Amino acid sequence: MKKVKVYITLKESVLDPQGQAVMQSLHNMNYPDVQDVRIGKYIELQMEDGADIAQKVDAICDRLLANTVIENYRYEIEEEVRS
Amino acid sequence: MKKVKVYITLKESVLDPQGQAVMQSLHNMNYPDVQDVRIGKYIELQMEDGADIAQKVDAICDRLLANTVIENYRYEIEEEVRS
Repeated sequence: MKKVKVYITLKESVLDPQGQAVMQSLHNMNYPDVQDVRIGKYIELQMEDGADIAQKVDAICDRLLANTVIENYRYEIEEEVRS
Repeated sequence: MKKVKVYITLKESVLDPQGQAVMQSLHNMNYPDVQDVRIGKYIELQMEDGADIAQKVDAICDRLLANTVIENYRYEIEEEVRS
């Protein structure tokens, strides 16, 4: 079993109104040090292991998780550690 | 200037209906290898550097970014690299 960590971020050129709202709130809360905020998604998948796991994760991100018109994604595949 | 990467995840004990919906979609799309999906947030902050930056990020996460009743957060503080 593998744990796949997927990070989905808006492309640089895409405006992030949610991030701007958070930044404005932080300024109002007296954190003027924050100069920019960008909000993305972090998705953890538990997947069965297999030789083609990277291709599967690519396909899953392209087809469902990310909107590749406006978003980039990257991922890490880790061995699942059961505590 | 520092780049702070904040990862916000639901606590283990909290149900994730959005993740379950994504998993069901993936099964319908013929990816039965996916056994679990958990959806969180990934937030990038650009902050001015300072000795107390870690305390500030903790406070920002506690007060605004994360709902600590149901969510955990972790973060990494990196030197900003301007390309």
